[in-house]
Amino acid sequence: MKASIGVGLIGTGYMGKCHALAWNSVKPVFGSGPQPRLVHLAEVNADIAQTKADEFGFAKATGDWRDLIADPEVDVVSVTTPNAFHAEMAIAALQAGKHVWCEKPMAVALADAERMAAVANASGKVAVLGYNYIQNPLVRHIGALLEQGAIGQVNHVRLEMDEDFMADPEALFYWKSEASSGYGALDDFGVHPLSLLHILFGSVTRVFAHLAKPYPTRPTKDGAARAVETFDIASVLFEMGEGISGVMALNRSAWGRKGRIALQIFGSKGSIVYDQERMNELQLYTTDGPGTERGYRTILTAPQHAPYDRFIPAPGHGLGFNDLKIIECHELLNAIAGQPARVIDFAKGLVIERTVHAMARSHEEQRWVEV
Amino acid sequence: MKASIGVGLIGTGYMGKCHALAWNSVKPVFGSGPQPRLVHLAEVNADIAQTKADEFGFAKATGDWRDLIADPEVDVVSVTTPNAFHAEMAIAALQAGKHVWCEKPMAVALADAERMAAVANASGKVAVLGYNYIQNPLVRHIGALLEQGAIGQVNHVRLEMDEDFMADPEALFYWKSEASSGYGALDDFGVHPLSLLHILFGSVTRVFAHLAKPYPTRPTKDGAARAVETFDIASVLFEMGEGISGVMALNRSAWGRKGRIALQIFGSKGSIVYDQERMNELQLYTTDGPGTERGYRTILTAPQHAPYDRFIPAPGHGLGFNDLKIIECHELLNAIAGQPARVIDFAKGLVIERTVHAMARSHEEQRWVEV
Amino acid sequence: MKASIGVGLIGTGYMGKCHALAWNSVKPVFGSGPQPRLVHLAEVNADIAQTKADEFGFAKATGDWRDLIADPEVDVVSVTTPNAFHAEMAIAALQAGKHVWCEKPMAVALADAERMAAVANASGKVAVLGYNYIQNPLVRHIGALLEQGAIGQVNHVRLEMDEDFMADPEALFYWKSEASSGYGALDDFGVHPLSLLHILFGSVTRVFAHLAKPYPTRPTKDGAARAVETFDIASVLFEMGEGISGVMALNRSAWGRKGRIALQIFGSKGSIVYDQERMNELQLYTTDGPGTERGYRTILTAPQHAPYDRFIPAPGHGLGFNDLKIIECHELLNAIAGQPARVIDFAKGLVIERTVHAMARSHEEQRWVEV
Amino acid sequence: MKASIGVGLIGTGYMGKCHALAWNSVKPVFGSGPQPRLVHLAEVNADIAQTKADEFGFAKATGDWRDLIADPEVDVVSVTTPNAFHAEMAIAALQAGKHVWCEKPMAVALADAERMAAVANASGKVAVLGYNYIQNPLVRHIGALLEQGAIGQVNHVRLEMDEDFMADPEALFYWKSEASSGYGALDDFGVHPLSLLHILFGSVTRVFAHLAKPYPTRPTKDGAARAVETFDIASVLFEMGEGISGVMALNRSAWGRKGRIALQIFGSKGSIVYDQERMNELQLYTTDGPGTERGYRTILTAPQHAPYDRFIPAPGHGLGFNDLKIIECHELLNAIAGQPARVIDFAKGLVIERTVHAMARSHEEQRWVEV
Repeated sequence: MKASIGVGLIGTGYMGKCHALAWNSVKPVFGSGPQPRLVHLAEVNADIAQTKADEFGFAKATGDWRDLIADPEVDVVSVTTPNAFHAEMAIAALQAGKHVWCEKPMAVALADAERMAAVANASGKVAVLGYNYIQNPLVRHIGALLEQGAIGQVNHVRLEMDEDFMADPEALFYWKSEASSGYGALDDFGVHPLSLLHILFGSVTRVFAHLAKPYPTRPTKDGAARAVETFDIASVLFEMGEGISGVMALNRSAWGRKGRIALQIFGSKGSIVYDQERMNELQLYTTDGPGTERGYRTILTAPQHAPYDRFIPAPGHGLGFNDLKIIECHELLNAIAGQPARVIDFAKGLVIERTVHAMARSHEEQRWVEV
Repeated sequence: MKASIGVGLIGTGYMGKCHALAWNSVKPVFGSGPQPRLVHLAEVNADIAQTKADEFGFAKATGDWRDLIADPEVDVVSVTTPNAFHAEMAIAALQAGKHVWCEKPMAVALADAERMAAVANASGKVAVLGYNYIQNPLVRHIGALLEQGAIGQVNHVRLEMDEDFMADPEALFYWKSEASSGYGALDDFGVHPLSLLHILFGSVTRVFAHLAKPYPTRPTKDGAARAVETFDIASVLFEMGEGISGVMALNRSAWGRKGRIALQIFGSKGSIVYDQERMNELQLYTTDGPGTERGYRTILTAPQHAPYDRFIPAPGHGLGFNDLKIIECHELLNAIAGQPARVIDFAKGLVIERTVHAMARSHEEQRWVEV
Repeated sequence: MKASIGVGLIGTGYMGKCHALAWNSVKPVFGSGPQPRLVHLAEVNADIAQTKADEFGFAKATGDWRDLIADPEVDVVSVTTPNAFHAEMAIAALQAGKHVWCEKPMAVALADAERMAAVANASGKVAVLGYNYIQNPLVRHIGALLEQGAIGQVNHVRLEMDEDFMADPEALFYWKSEASSGYGALDDFGVHPLSLLHILFGSVTRVFAHLAKPYPTRPTKDGAARAVETFDIASVLFEMGEGISGVMALNRSAWGRKGRIALQIFGSKGSIVYDQERMNELQLYTTDGPGTERGYRTILTAPQHAPYDRFIPAPGHGLGFNDLKIIECHELLNAIAGQPARVIDFAKGLVIERTVHAMARSHEEQRWVEV
Repeated sequence: MKASIGVGLIGTGYMGKCHALAWNSVKPVFGSGPQPRLVHLAEVNADIAQTKADEFGFAKATGDWRDLIADPEVDVVSVTTPNAFHAEMAIAALQAGKHVWCEKPMAVALADAERMAAVANASGKVAVLGYNYIQNPLVRHIGALLEQGAIGQVNHVRLEMDEDFMADPEALFYWKSEASSGYGALDDFGVHPLSLLHILFGSVTRVFAHLAKPYPTRPTKDGAARAVETFDIASVLFEMGEGISGVMALNRSAWGRKGRIALQIFGSKGSIVYDQERMNELQLYTTDGPGTERGYRTILTAPQHAPYDRFIPAPGHGLGFNDLKIIECHELLNAIAGQPARVIDFAKGLVIERTVHAMARSHEEQRWVEV
């Protein structure tokens, strides 16, 4: 393994900052792996690029992302720009021989996602998507529990993802209500629970979806009302292989919910319940022991739940959302080093995208759709 | 109002006992209303009938329920026998000029439910179903909050009902897995959340359902495996009037869940969350006040939430499941007295039954079905 | 055992009603034991006595409690009057050859409690106090867990009891702030957690207490401020035999707390956590199993936790506060029948009273006091 | 303000790593302030020093911490060595003209803490202790709520701190059970809740403590039993100015507790409840609004709770334990820049130390001790 790796970052919004924090922390946290060199930062506004490069610790700054792609010192490119730019940038980076760490979702249009996956496959480079929720040590532990058969054969799954940033009907119409942004909650949110499903169980085979608009119109600046084109609520029934049925409920207008990604997994010997709003807790019910002592047990993240131990040596002290990105960055570096890595690469990401688009088609055609 | 009312009880299983407890307690709890006279108890086994009559405080006992129906001292009949007998007994009682308090669901076959509603309507007598969950003072308070507009215009509802009495795949095949018992979770459970929907919002207009068998076969006594005919899991999408979309998820094989009836109601100004397993708590989120202080508030039942005050004068001390039946009994007496009453009568009950059957048809035909 | 037992009830406030409900329900719930005959009800106001007798189902009513004591049909007397009357009434009843079921605390003055215990002892009759919280099936199960060694050797206990009925500084001065009512939270509340300690572990040996007044004065009707004479807050350190240390914190001015009686028990192999506000849940942590799966498990009351099964045959459906009184009534009947009974009799009650008075002395003398 | 600041780090255990992470992340997170230059790392083993310097990003490494103190490029020194070394190192650094960021507690002996505070005062340099729990944005918000009078005049406080690293009686005797390590839970834990008390309310005036040994002996390697010299449990009553009474309960042998620091604050208009194990949640109860709608509200950390917004722009996504150290580092830099800073400096730290020693004396003398 090379002693260091050159990093380029495109985008300086929240996800750009989150990537920057991960690149700064991954070596101190994990100790192992190459030392990231923060080489080049790109941002459409050159002044902001320079300011953010100083803040984030990048050596060079540019207002033109193609400079970054062309920089021979850059080995891996973080793409954290709005979704509409993912395809062009990721493809350019891969074709320039860079590894790519691209924020999800892959692209607005399925055709773009398909091109991205094809180019990634042809490139021989690592192309990974930013599905950070799968990196929670407790989500990893759910996977271990399922593999060990702790809850037997799984037969039913429920997922919910809810936030309230679209909950205020008085908030002005903005691009998230335009059809050009996608379907709404379905693609804005759905990819997250689907990433959990994918990492824990594999692929969804069949979907039935219903999309809804809690507010048919939203006010505009001039006091008029504009018809909403996206669906802030999506409710989906699905099936996976091996006899698993499921329900996925998404709502980005859910007053009171802030970062809820709730998971209920039912098996023949127990069940598992998880909610991202309490990301350091896992609920496990098993049929072991006497009936008088059975109940959901609340497991707090502990050093035994790797890689929590790389962050904190004592149990129950809590990881944060940004820590998940550091773990993701470490997994990306594992992938680049040719080691086993827990990532959603472009090929798997494409499966998730196809599932989302199948759901949208199901809603339109009011029928079950095979993925 | 008559100073007393003569009570007949058919059935001495759990629900029979629950009715008996309610009849014994309704006057001491509420103080008002007629004094119930426990006149006649019927149970197919005459010996058990006598024993239970002594325990429950009934004056007479019989092994033939028709004796009870014919008893002129009986004014109201509690029907708590297995579902298959509801129609015959309720109809006979109504035709004999008795009021009827019948456990839910109305009947296995829709045609029977329709007959029951028709006879009730023709009789001029009060005919009420045992939907006790609607009697929780906190469920009543949810209704009050909705009416006051505390969470604005409701646009989305999620309901879950889960228990685990069918969760063990090693449990022997019994009648709940036979098609003659009904569809499975759909009618066994679905009527409960539907009773909450009905009392809070009105009728469901359109449904799409998917039924699933977690265990395709179950063992029999002789060591063989018998094909399961009912669906322990049911997942339903639905719409109500006024632009409300919803999801209803039912699972009677949900390890770890004991009496979960979880309700999430999202509106334009807030949301309400409730779970029957913590039946003395209500979660309310509103958009009042500064953003720094917003959050779900956990409201404990208090004397202000009538009729909790009839049971306990201090807040937070907790009602139990059986108390709901006492409230239901009081509402029944209100109905008999011609006063406003919070009940699901046979007419409303029939709407619930039709909704369940529409869901079953939706599953078979794999399409949305209008109710 | 006699087939029936004659019941007299003195007092028709909340606790009077609670006893009446228990007397009405104990036979239908438990099936076994004598049939209570509701013979005589006493209440200082004769009209109210008659009204309540009708509501509660008592045959006779009187404005003079001595009539009731003299009634030969009465076998057992429920004393539910204000604390100041307990001693006189209980003693008179015992001396008249009745069994006594007296609400706690025994008496305001220690000397009265001592007399009550002495008379009870001499009478040969059953004399039981209304410590209902010990009757919760989950509290009983905590006892079973401790006996089984589920959490090893107990070494530390924390108890909290908090409500908020004295929390409002604007509320008018009333008798609970007068010294004649007792010490304040210490006796008003302290007896409850002490009853739990007593039933689970035995006696407290040594105490150190600090009493506090959150509001030194309270307003009076005429707009003046009157000095508060009682302590709404009490904080106590204590020791029990066998090396158990403990903390007991009481606050009847604790805004937001409604019926909190929180218990934390730490042992050499695990711990138990309980809160009366969620009286149907128990938290158990044990060191069994792999470290990755350890956590507090939330056990919901189930039929295996007797006598929950006498109320409800399905787990997780929930008992209420009033149900505890029915269980207490059943235990009283067991005691009267000469069978093993889970009760705090006058002898044990006196130990609790002495412990409370020792705490008060500790506060005054600012030193550890042996009980 | 200088554009950059030279950092020296002594110690590479968990707290050393935690400081290193904070120094790496503080500029990318906050954007403002000087750029930390990671200059010099000291660790008694020179090889480990070099390895950790590479991992953490420090330019130089040494096996002799005095090299680091003598390094003119170093402006601020992080002291993260075992408690016994704090005094010597912090004093040397201050005397060499460096700012100091020293982990808590200050020192084992009170005299050392007093010297540290005196030297810090004389030096004119910034000397700050690592009390990270005060940096939680929700703890900061508790302070804001108290200042706004959201819960009125505070009259009672309860604090608990519990972990279970000393809970196993079979674990071999090690230095934490030796008297040379201090009193036990009292100083190991007590300083944390005291830092919260200090930042929220000010100083404790009077204490009464009771220390306990859950396990009088612990096994040694050779199979013998050695008498335990420290107290794993400490229970304290206290008073603060302005009529606030309190209870502080500490237990480092509390099976099941992992990072519990539970705070209950009662005021004349409401109450606040917090538990570090759910560090992204705050419970607030106020008396506003109708009685039917009152309850504890669970507030999730949100961007409005500064400086959460510097980490994540969306509410409810969760900070982690290590993030608190980044905030602390930022406050340290504020202090160095002469700006208002939320820190426990050596002067305030000394007050905390004195309070702990007063508690120990109270236990020995079994009396209230003024601080």
